[in-house]
Amino acid sequence: MDNPFLVEVTRGNLVESRHRGSIAVVDADGGTVLSLGDVERRVFPRSAVKAIQALPLIESGIADKYSLSDEEIALACASHSGEPEHVRVAQSMLAKAGRDATCLECGAHWPSGEAAKLALAAQGEKPNALHNNCSGKHAGFICLACGLDEDPRGYVKSAHPVQQAVRAALEDLTGASHTEEVSGIDGCSIPTYAIPLPSLAFGFAKFGAGVGLSSGYKSAAERIRQAVARHPFMVAGTDRFDTKLMTVLGERVFVKVGAEGVFCAAFPELGFGVALKADDGNGRAAEAMMAGLVLRFLQLADEQRAAVEALAQPVLKNWNGIEVGRIRPSSDFLQ
Amino acid sequence: MDNPFLVEVTRGNLVESRHRGSIAVVDADGGTVLSLGDVERRVFPRSAVKAIQALPLIESGIADKYSLSDEEIALACASHSGEPEHVRVAQSMLAKAGRDATCLECGAHWPSGEAAKLALAAQGEKPNALHNNCSGKHAGFICLACGLDEDPRGYVKSAHPVQQAVRAALEDLTGASHTEEVSGIDGCSIPTYAIPLPSLAFGFAKFGAGVGLSSGYKSAAERIRQAVARHPFMVAGTDRFDTKLMTVLGERVFVKVGAEGVFCAAFPELGFGVALKADDGNGRAAEAMMAGLVLRFLQLADEQRAAVEALAQPVLKNWNGIEVGRIRPSSDFLQ
Repeated sequence: MDNPFLVEVTRGNLVESRHRGSIAVVDADGGTVLSLGDVERRVFPRSAVKAIQALPLIESGIADKYSLSDEEIALACASHSGEPEHVRVAQSMLAKAGRDATCLECGAHWPSGEAAKLALAAQGEKPNALHNNCSGKHAGFICLACGLDEDPRGYVKSAHPVQQAVRAALEDLTGASHTEEVSGIDGCSIPTYAIPLPSLAFGFAKFGAGVGLSSGYKSAAERIRQAVARHPFMVAGTDRFDTKLMTVLGERVFVKVGAEGVFCAAFPELGFGVALKADDGNGRAAEAMMAGLVLRFLQLADEQRAAVEALAQPVLKNWNGIEVGRIRPSSDFLQ
Repeated sequence: MDNPFLVEVTRGNLVESRHRGSIAVVDADGGTVLSLGDVERRVFPRSAVKAIQALPLIESGIADKYSLSDEEIALACASHSGEPEHVRVAQSMLAKAGRDATCLECGAHWPSGEAAKLALAAQGEKPNALHNNCSGKHAGFICLACGLDEDPRGYVKSAHPVQQAVRAALEDLTGASHTEEVSGIDGCSIPTYAIPLPSLAFGFAKFGAGVGLSSGYKSAAERIRQAVARHPFMVAGTDRFDTKLMTVLGERVFVKVGAEGVFCAAFPELGFGVALKADDGNGRAAEAMMAGLVLRFLQLADEQRAAVEALAQPVLKNWNGIEVGRIRPSSDFLQ
């Protein structure tokens, strides 16, 4: 099955590049709201499921045991830009568990935020694991291990109690089995499991609506959604899509990007969960699709609509600031 | 017409992302050697035609008038990484025409080379137009303007004698008309014209084989190919595909990347020209396709073959250096 063209990139009067993709929107009963393309093809959700991966930390009571703040809970669900505030909060989470950055097993990389990267270089410094976009998630994993009285070492391995708890949460919410055969290694070294988009969307429908969940997961999901809505900067960063969208819409949308063109979302007021993937793994296409879905499904005030439209159809400028084209949902997608 | 899957990106045992594209390989008589996908769809060649855009500088005798070196001629065809050597050579070209960086109209951006960018930031500096990946091409344009006794100001505009000469060279080699309706503005502010891939490939077949050209263009093309083969670092930079491929194969291949997944090449010994585009504009896919075509068409010694295979099927590692997958030509493409 050929996936449809969903996003196009223009230059002058022509379409220069085109992105295909697949989208599943599902309600909290698992009913199909929208299905575009081959949604049964398994997709690695990558970082798009960090909020579900954070459920055991809250549900276990360990977040409360360590008095984790809303900022810290938001960072546990983040793919952050490595800005100083993100680094500070990751460090604070580790300190609450009596640990430090040497326990992180995510690897180091330069901040993904351009300004943060250049500022770090200008200070003559090099990045460490706290700058890794996943450091908040990993700090949460270390808190979980310590709170369970487990040795955090090796917490990235699939056999470690931390990853077992994470996998159980993913299976519980999505209803899809997460087995070795469909697993890969994520950028930050934890396992990632490929599942169909409708399963992923179903998980986020339940996460957003709070239905079909144990009472522990239900209140954990609510706490995460509130924490992220209060601190949208923590889950991404300056000029990032997730931060901008949730700053505009607050608790009306929970949205999380993943690598390779994956995006997940919950629209709690409708009880809908969303999962999508750009075939080619391109993030610009995934962002335009997600903003397009928000415009399609949510009633927005004029100012909110304008802000989301700017995310759905960003203008492309060259090095002299001249407008050269734009990214936009294709006509197929807008129908 | 649906373009075929040509490149896939794996994670674990699964294909995570897939790239479609189109490819035209043409001989110097314009005969079709290979045609994959919808090759009649117009494509903006972007920076892939810089070598053709540099022909007027040589053919006019102005490169000789200013005693441009092989390094400088190679840089005139470059999308360079903004490394110190690139900046030095661009500056030298401008000085030979009695000009400096204030004449560049390409805009400033941080070096595209990561190490060069971080080193510049560590020195507390900011980028200028010399760091722009197109600064060599623009320095060549300024030399051309000055050599023609034209005011270089506005040399990026389509009506300026520089762009008229450049457009004439593009039309002459490709045989395609370059009109306003199919034009867009490139990243560096000059016009770019969308033409079909076979026309683009035809231009590079003639460029590489030296047939079907005026004697002036023929010797200019030869000079450019030799200059680039002698200084492959100048056309791209550290760890860049074009530099690596031409370092291994010398004058046997002329290859040039363009933005948005475009690649052009000449295989002079076969008289073939190549033009390809990844539908989605992704450079990793375009690189894998180009390396795949080199493997398909050229007889290579074992060591050369191994080097090109590493470019066709790069291993993907995560932040801890663990192999997580690879990029590879799809089975359709390898047939």
